Amino acid sequence: MKVHNFSAGPSILPDSTVENTAAAIKNFAGTSLSLMEVSHRSKEFVAVMDEAIALFKELLDIPAGYSVIFVGGGASTQFCMVPYNLMAKKSAYLNTGTWANKAMKEAKLFGEVVEVASSKDTLYNYIPKGYEIPADADYFHITTNNTIYGTEIKHDMDVNVPLVADMSSDIFSRPVDVSKYALIYGGAQKNLAPAGVTFVIVKDELLGKVDRAIPTMLNYQTHIDGESMFNTPPVVPVFAALETLRWIKEQGGVAAMQKMNEEKAAVLYNEIDRNPMFKGTVINEEDRSLMNICFVMTDEYKELEKEFYEFATAKGMSGIKGHRSVGGFRASTYNALPKSSVQALVDCMKEFETMHVK
Amino acid sequence: MKVHNFSAGPSILPDSTVENTAAAIKNFAGTSLSLMEVSHRSKEFVAVMDEAIALFKELLDIPAGYSVIFVGGGASTQFCMVPYNLMAKKSAYLNTGTWANKAMKEAKLFGEVVEVASSKDTLYNYIPKGYEIPADADYFHITTNNTIYGTEIKHDMDVNVPLVADMSSDIFSRPVDVSKYALIYGGAQKNLAPAGVTFVIVKDELLGKVDRAIPTMLNYQTHIDGESMFNTPPVVPVFAALETLRWIKEQGGVAAMQKMNEEKAAVLYNEIDRNPMFKGTVINEEDRSLMNICFVMTDEYKELEKEFYEFATAKGMSGIKGHRSVGGFRASTYNALPKSSVQALVDCMKEFETMHVK
Repeated sequence: MKVHNFSAGPSILPDSTVENTAAAIKNFAGTSLSLMEVSHRSKEFVAVMDEAIALFKELLDIPAGYSVIFVGGGASTQFCMVPYNLMAKKSAYLNTGTWANKAMKEAKLFGEVVEVASSKDTLYNYIPKGYEIPADADYFHITTNNTIYGTEIKHDMDVNVPLVADMSSDIFSRPVDVSKYALIYGGAQKNLAPAGVTFVIVKDELLGKVDRAIPTMLNYQTHIDGESMFNTPPVVPVFAALETLRWIKEQGGVAAMQKMNEEKAAVLYNEIDRNPMFKGTVINEEDRSLMNICFVMTDEYKELEKEFYEFATAKGMSGIKGHRSVGGFRASTYNALPKSSVQALVDCMKEFETMHVK
Repeated sequence: MKVHNFSAGPSILPDSTVENTAAAIKNFAGTSLSLMEVSHRSKEFVAVMDEAIALFKELLDIPAGYSVIFVGGGASTQFCMVPYNLMAKKSAYLNTGTWANKAMKEAKLFGEVVEVASSKDTLYNYIPKGYEIPADADYFHITTNNTIYGTEIKHDMDVNVPLVADMSSDIFSRPVDVSKYALIYGGAQKNLAPAGVTFVIVKDELLGKVDRAIPTMLNYQTHIDGESMFNTPPVVPVFAALETLRWIKEQGGVAAMQKMNEEKAAVLYNEIDRNPMFKGTVINEEDRSLMNICFVMTDEYKELEKEFYEFATAKGMSGIKGHRSVGGFRASTYNALPKSSVQALVDCMKEFETMHVK
């Protein structure tokens, strides 16, 4: 049976990433050695790192004056690295969910944190707007896509202080005007690579301005100076990231990704809105995520939730259970998920409707 | 041509680790999904993590009261995590080379660091002995194996303060009496897995005793409580680590590893000592590493160094160049390197001798 991978992350990657990584683990770049066994200083692996960084910059059209680095530790480590490196006294955060809260918690270790707005009271089912950012904040932090709640900030904001964005779950899903950001970071395990590597895009001139001593590995400058090779990088995830970047380029780049993601999301949201058994959880249409599509059963059919889960799972839909805090269903529709998988899920919803709606 | 992988790290792994990881990247545990694409919360991956931790404890015979965790960020991140978590005011370090220096540098951010002894003046060609450790140090830190210089502490010390060891490059190469240590850590990319995962063995009762606020991801307790799943773990390296641990067990465990490593090292050191063209760089026999065997050409044949490098490389010896700070040659003989590879290198040395020694 064909498995349709709607997992929220780690999540589906392009077939070419999977095939070529498996092949390189057996024999990397004609070395007769495994990708897992070669020196990261070998010319073959240095070429992988160089091409990955170059393609990363090319695909996102990153302007001069920004560095791109790959580090370990996950986005969770960035939650403390951002304030460690950028926060002199005060920072501002937009509270759009669990991950924003985790980021804020770490910032509080380094000074005053202002929560400019929050949608916590309604279980984060919208993106707050119309708030004020303190002009003396060292930066303003947003989580562009909220995997648990299915909300997304799908545009590049204009704000009055340096803008920092956690784009773990929507990087490379659309063109981004990087010049509007001070720093963008994310774990790779959605649109890029298996878990184990984290990317950071940082405006160079913002570094070196805090007084505190920063541990070497937590200092962005270390990894910029070391060209992501200060210590041994996670070679397998970096290799896989390169394969995915090549795939994105072949597909037509981030503009093509955006078009495909919008088409996929439209098919599924339209069915959620049409089908009397289901409803979306996000209250504003403009806040609906193109990456994680969250929905529940309408009140009338609430008791059939478990049955639909089992019905769809039996038909090959994998990873569609909603996060325990929201319940219902979550279909993650990352870049590599084909339209046919979305159609398969919609077919399940329609079939379930014919079985239960008079 | 057969390639013999003497790389210092990332380095050779067992064939079964390579084969089974490549296979799992195509289809993991019968899920029809790639290991790179499955949720780390799936029952299949949770089983991998659980077995890896359990085998880790079993193979090293780790007593009750110790936790084993897998984290990202490399041993370099441990250089700051150790003092962040364990150092209230003062720590003591044994300076046996580059990595010990890097560890010491981070500790200095957290208080007073006492260098109890150093072999720096003679380019770290021995392990200092007969030093005194301040009784009020929160811990004493050693680097058990020094990859660059080819020295190794091959026994478990009795010391008067909690003992912390960086065992990045010799973990699982011999039985270790874990009860003598407060904490053992290491990057996985020598005897265990590809780069991207770091292990920590920590005595639980030593945690929670410092006053400072510790960022969540740098706090050992976070990862103990989260069973190495607080954030998304590096799934591919963890899977590979499990495969290697299974291989070690099949071979007869760490006692069998030690026996094989001693035999391999004896073959190569004997040739280095016998062959008039070569000499070892480590001055005390008891300090010679079983993992990284460093040697140079004797003064009489010094000018043939490049020629021997090319001769041996042409015969399939890969990664034998010595670190630039020491020069000459370094043959890394980690667990997975077969005896036949060591013999192949010795054969090169003998053949080179017949070509040049009258």
